[in-house]
Order: sequence, then structure tokens, then C-alpha cells
Amino acid sequence: VEVGARERLVALLNPLHDADIADLLEQIDQPLRARLIALWGADIAPYAITELRSGVRDLVVPLLSPEQLARVAEELETDDMVYLVEDLAETDQEKVLDALDDADRMAVERSLTYPEYSAGRLMQRELVSAPEHWTVGEIIDYMRASDDLPDEFYDVIIVDPRHRPVGMVALSKIMANRRETRLDTLMNEDFRIIPADQAQEDVAYAFNQYHLITGPVVDAQGRLVGVITIDDAMEVLEDEAEEDMKLLAGVGDEEIADRVWETARARFPWLAVNICTALIASAVIALFSGTIEAIVALAVLMPIVTSMGGNAGTQSLTVAVRGLATRDITSKNMWRVVRREVIVGVLNGAVFGMLIGAVGFIWFGTPMLGVVLWLAMLLNMLVAGLVGILIPIGLDRAGADPALASGVFVTMSTDVIGFLAFLGLASVMLL
Amino acid sequence: VEVGARERLVALLNPLHDADIADLLEQIDQPLRARLIALWGADIAPYAITELRSGVRDLVVPLLSPEQLARVAEELETDDMVYLVEDLAETDQEKVLDALDDADRMAVERSLTYPEYSAGRLMQRELVSAPEHWTVGEIIDYMRASDDLPDEFYDVIIVDPRHRPVGMVALSKIMANRRETRLDTLMNEDFRIIPADQAQEDVAYAFNQYHLITGPVVDAQGRLVGVITIDDAMEVLEDEAEEDMKLLAGVGDEEIADRVWETARARFPWLAVNICTALIASAVIALFSGTIEAIVALAVLMPIVTSMGGNAGTQSLTVAVRGLATRDITSKNMWRVVRREVIVGVLNGAVFGMLIGAVGFIWFGTPMLGVVLWLAMLLNMLVAGLVGILIPIGLDRAGADPALASGVFVTMSTDVIGFLAFLGLASVMLL
Repeated sequence: VEVGARERLVALLNPLHDADIADLLEQIDQPLRARLIALWGADIAPYAITELRSGVRDLVVPLLSPEQLARVAEELETDDMVYLVEDLAETDQEKVLDALDDADRMAVERSLTYPEYSAGRLMQRELVSAPEHWTVGEIIDYMRASDDLPDEFYDVIIVDPRHRPVGMVALSKIMANRRETRLDTLMNEDFRIIPADQAQEDVAYAFNQYHLITGPVVDAQGRLVGVITIDDAMEVLEDEAEEDMKLLAGVGDEEIADRVWETARARFPWLAVNICTALIASAVIALFSGTIEAIVALAVLMPIVTSMGGNAGTQSLTVAVRGLATRDITSKNMWRVVRREVIVGVLNGAVFGMLIGAVGFIWFGTPMLGVVLWLAMLLNMLVAGLVGILIPIGLDRAGADPALASGVFVTMSTDVIGFLAFLGLASVMLL
Repeated sequence: VEVGARERLVALLNPLHDADIADLLEQIDQPLRARLIALWGADIAPYAITELRSGVRDLVVPLLSPEQLARVAEELETDDMVYLVEDLAETDQEKVLDALDDADRMAVERSLTYPEYSAGRLMQRELVSAPEHWTVGEIIDYMRASDDLPDEFYDVIIVDPRHRPVGMVALSKIMANRRETRLDTLMNEDFRIIPADQAQEDVAYAFNQYHLITGPVVDAQGRLVGVITIDDAMEVLEDEAEEDMKLLAGVGDEEIADRVWETARARFPWLAVNICTALIASAVIALFSGTIEAIVALAVLMPIVTSMGGNAGTQSLTVAVRGLATRDITSKNMWRVVRREVIVGVLNGAVFGMLIGAVGFIWFGTPMLGVVLWLAMLLNMLVAGLVGILIPIGLDRAGADPALASGVFVTMSTDVIGFLAFLGLASVMLL
């Protein structure tokens, strides 16, 4: 790349899979990317661009020349086009849309009218549908005659005269039957219709739960407007799991390819929230500085209570966030799950409190200190279980993401309650 | 169910999707499950059993009568059969295998010889393959004549005379071409062969990275022995993400359906490790009890340093675990990622250290206390970044799961370093 040897570049990139080229583009820096893209010219691999992570993608698309855009536009299907342009600045978006032919341009523009992260954005408009009365022979002849079939598809959607989907026939079923068989006798009625405005995570859940391969997408009038295939759903599922994990840890939308400055900024907000909650915990300790001055052992032991509480709270929280994501926690079993978390907290709190109480007694020789530790631990782990489950459920009920900021609030609660219980009990029972 | 009305039960369950029946079975208790299964009789839905989570599945399978087993065996494909029996006790396994016909029994037994969590366990043996010289017409005629095609399949695997896969043709391509077209002209050469002993998470990664729909599985001699389809890979991907998340939080293999006792036990080990690390942190504080006695403000402020360190460490850790899982962190960019984490730690440490130093100064009126806070925070957040990235990378290099226990060790490091730095600096600079 450095010396501008175009042919060698093309020869090198050609055998690579688009996804691997995308990984390569992610790992190099922006000036090098610009040179590489320019050098690549008309041989650019359209799918390598769609494979890029969003941060890098939005940097690469403006680098493309009009000819490259035309080549990209010609090859991609509507879902990939939408994916490519949705996060772009308006002028860049225009540039890409201009490269499309009229039909595609309209299709992409219509998809963009659906809300972000909805089924309408995820779907592709290219699909194969057939009326109910068609036979295996007719659909095969239709497909052989057609010259703009989708790249890959797995089912034919059967529609009624008003273009509403009524069933689906797997290609494998079509191929295994005789030409005169009617399609509607082969229909897999156990199919799910996806409204275009459904949230993409609900779509991914349905694919995973019901092992769907193809899901027909309908507009508000119930008419077939597109399909979502399992590979799109798989990507969403992966993204959602990643998002939950990052939200739990208080990491924003950062990527490995981000530079130092972006990463530091992405982590800043959570750390800022955390410093506030840490100050609240400090204020609680300050209330008892007289007690600590009298018995310095309290300062030595107090982090054990909060550390165990924080740990137990994170355990409950993680189980709750996963349970909500996989729909294993429902309004029906919710109270049973809450009760279980509380009992588990009490059980583990009792056991570990006893243990640490014994350690405290032996270490500092004060029996009452052991009792205080035991009670504080018990109380804090009960609270940890309760808060760990109630915060994500509450956020979910309020329509927010249950993973959002939960971690910070759970540890704040266990820190505050831990210090309050331990130091409070100590000042009552030991002074 | 309570009154034993068999017909009503069947009428109620019939319209439900298998996955929803499985959810129902998971939510009721074992005696009720036993009654429901008995009542269900020969109408049992085989796929409802495979949809069960492993804990519940292993309780349900022994409840099945021989007739029910026979019905289950007859309907399932080999991958589902393997999935069903692999975790069973040996006697239960025998019972299920006996219900199979000889060919299926042999196929399942052969799959069980592959290691757990390998491609060989995940694959199904039912597939459609064809020699290179066949035409579209021949394969269609073959499929029409065959009476034991797989339930659903999306590609025909093209094999050479020694039964080694050389390519794959999508059904949609077959249907779109004329009868006399040779299959090898339609082949999608960009396909990936999966060795039967490959780890399932590597399989899932390949499906996700290269958008595979079908992956041919080969034995040690390179011969085609089965296929893995995208829906299986999707499940693995989901399981692996869940596993990482739970390992990070120190939650074992627990499920929402578990009872109190199992849950408490599952969380016990991590809490036990955590209490040991908390005691180490306490021992560090105890070293400085004289200093704390002299300046009680230290006890008030010290949790802020460790809390921020723990938080920053968890952020780095989460990014590292995800980066390793998605292969975004490679041996090539590893050191760049480590360097970035350290610099981010220093940057955020400097900013938040300054902030909290100012608070400490204003609160307690000692300028030097502010300086100590600032330095301790800076150092601890640097260590947090370093430990947060190096522990998971080290575990990965050692062949362990990078998420395993990382959380506990990261917080231990930030607690110990945090207390040591803050109290150590304080005793040098303030006394």
C-alpha cells in the first residue's frame, strides 16, 4: 500500500473474505485507510464495507469515489444499503443515495422512514412471494425466468390476493415435491409475521425462541413489505448481548478500534456517576468518624462488608439482566424470582457473616465485634439480593434497558447500606 | 392437569409452539411435571423436550415412558438426539438409545465419541450431498425420489469421489437454473469446512464472521460426516455470550428455574473467593491502623480510591473479554490495546484524582491530603487498566476462558493497590 502498487494490493485482498478485509480496515489508521481505498479503485469489495463496525464505517463511506459508490450500490441488497447509510451525515447520505437507481433509492428511502432499531430497518425488500394457488412447477418456472432474485433465500412467502402473507414454503420442500403439487399443501403454517415497527431485539428473540429462518415483515395494513433472515437476527442478538455486557460494566459504545481519546471519553460518564456515589458512601462513613476513631478495627473490617455486598448484588443483577433479555423472567414468575434472591441473600449472608464474624472476633478479640460483623453482612447481602433484582426489573418496567447503569446503582446501594449497617450497629453495640 | 383431564391438556398444548411448552415445563415444579408428562402420553411434542434448558431436561427425560421415547426418537434428527442424551445418567442414556433404530443409534453413538462442545456434537448427520458432475435436473429428481430428506436444509454439499466436500450449492441457486446446468458451475466456492473436533465457540465465530448458513463437517480424513446449520450456531453464540457474562459476575451455571438451594450453592464459590480477597485488602488496611487512628479522614476517603479503581478495572476487563470473544484482540494488536488501556487509565485517573483531591482538600482543609488522594487515584486507575486487560489476555493465552474469575482478581488488585497507595502515601506525606 505504501508504494502505491495497485495490482499487488488487489491480488493480496482478492483471496480474503470480505469480513477479514473489514477487520484489516478497522485495524489501520485513517490516513492509511484513505490511501488504501483510493488505490483499491473499482475493485472495491462492497461487502467489506458493510462488514465494518459502525464507527469505522462512517469514516470510510465518505472516502469512496462516485464510481466506487456506484459499484457498491449495484451489488448490495436493500437491508445492507440501509445499514450503510443510516448513520451517515446528511450530505454523505445524499451522495450514496444518488448512486442508486430509482427503484432502489425509493426502497432505501422508505426503509429509512421506519424507526432506528426496528424490523423495518433490518429487513430486505428483495424476496420471492407466490399466490396460494401456484404449484411447485409454476414457482420453479417463475424463478428460472426471473433475473433479479435475492442473492440467497430459503423460503417462498405465500400471499393472499391482498398481498398479506398467509404461509411460507421452504425451498427444500419445494424441491422434494412433484411439479403439480400445490404450494399451499406444503406450507409451514407455524410461521410468525413481524410488524415493520417491531423493535429489533424482539425480532431477534423470536428468531432464537422459535428457530425461524425467514420472517416476513408486514406494514401497518398487514401487507408483505420485506423479509428478515436468520443471519440478520443473529447479528442483532450478538449486538444486544454485547450491549448488555457493556452497559453492566458502564462501558459506552466503544470499540477496540477506537483511539485513546475516544475510549477515555466513552468511559468518563460512568466514572463520573461512580465518583458521586462513592462520595455518598464516604459521607456515610464520615457520620461515624467518632466511632472509627475509638475503634480503628472498624476501618479495617468495613470494606469486607461492602465488598461482599457488591459481589452478591452483581450476581443477582447479572442473573436478572440475562433473565429479562431471554424472557425467562416474566410478570408471572417475577415475585418468585425476587423472593428467591432475597432468601439466597439471607442464606449466603448468614454463612459468610458467621465466617467473617469469627475472623473478626479472633483477630481483634472482641466477641461483640464478631456479632456486629455477622449482622451487618446478613443485612447487606439481603439488600444486595433485593436491589440486584429490583433495579433491573424496575428499569425494564419503565421501558429502559435493564442493564443501563444498574451496576453503579447496585454497588451504591450495597456500599451505603453496608457502611451504614456495620458502623451504625458498631456505634450502638460497641461504644 | 390437576384433575387429569387428558384431552383438555392436549387441546391446550397443541396450539402452543414447542419452545413455549418448554418454557411452561420449566416454570412448574417436578411433581407437577411428572403428572403432566404422564398425562400427555403419546401426544408428547418431541421438540418441546429438546427446547428445555439442560437442568430441567435431565429431570424430564427419565420421566418419559418407552412409548413416548419411541415417538421422540422417531421424530428428532441426530443433532437433537445427541443434545438430548449427552448429559443423561448412563442408565437413562441406554433407555433412550434403545428406542432408536439401528442406523440412528449408531449415528448418535458415533457423535457421542466426539468431545463435548465440539463441532461433532453439534452437527446433524442428515444432509444432502451430490457428486460434482450432477446437474440441476438430477439433484431435483434425486430429492423428489428420496423419502428421508432432512427436515430443513438450505444447501447441497458437493463432494468428490472420496466423499470430501469441494463446494456447496444454495437451493435458491438450484431452483433459479435450468435442469441441464451442472451443479459445479453454481458452486459457492467461498465455503468453510469445519473439522469435527473444532470447539463449538470457534464454529459459532466462523458462522457469525463469514455469514455462513450451512457448514460441512469433516472427519480427520477430510470426509463429509455431517453439517452444522446457522440455527445451531446461533444457539451456541447466545450460550457463549451468556457464559461470559455470568463468569464475569461470578455466577455459575445457574438458571432462573433453579430453586433457592441450588442458586445459593452456585454462587457460593465466588463469594468464598471474594471473602478471601477482601481479607487480604483488610490486612493491607490493618498495616496502617496507626495512620488511620491519627487521621480519621483517611478511613472516610479510602473507599473512593478503591471504588473508582474497581470500576475502571471492570470497564477494561469487559472490553477485553468482549474483544477476545469477537477476535478483535489478536496477538498483533494486543500491545497496542494494552498501551491504550494504560493511557486511558492515566488520563481518567488524573482527571478524577484532581476532582476528588479538591473535594478532600475542601472537606478536611488539608492541602496535602488532596495531593495524596490525587496520586493514589492516578496510580490505582493506571493499575486498573493494566490488570483489567492483562488478566483476561493471560487467561486466554493459558487456554482458559478469559472471563473466568477475572472480575474477582481485578477488584482484588485494585482494592489492594488502592488501599496500599492511598494509606502508604498518607503515612509518608501526612505524618
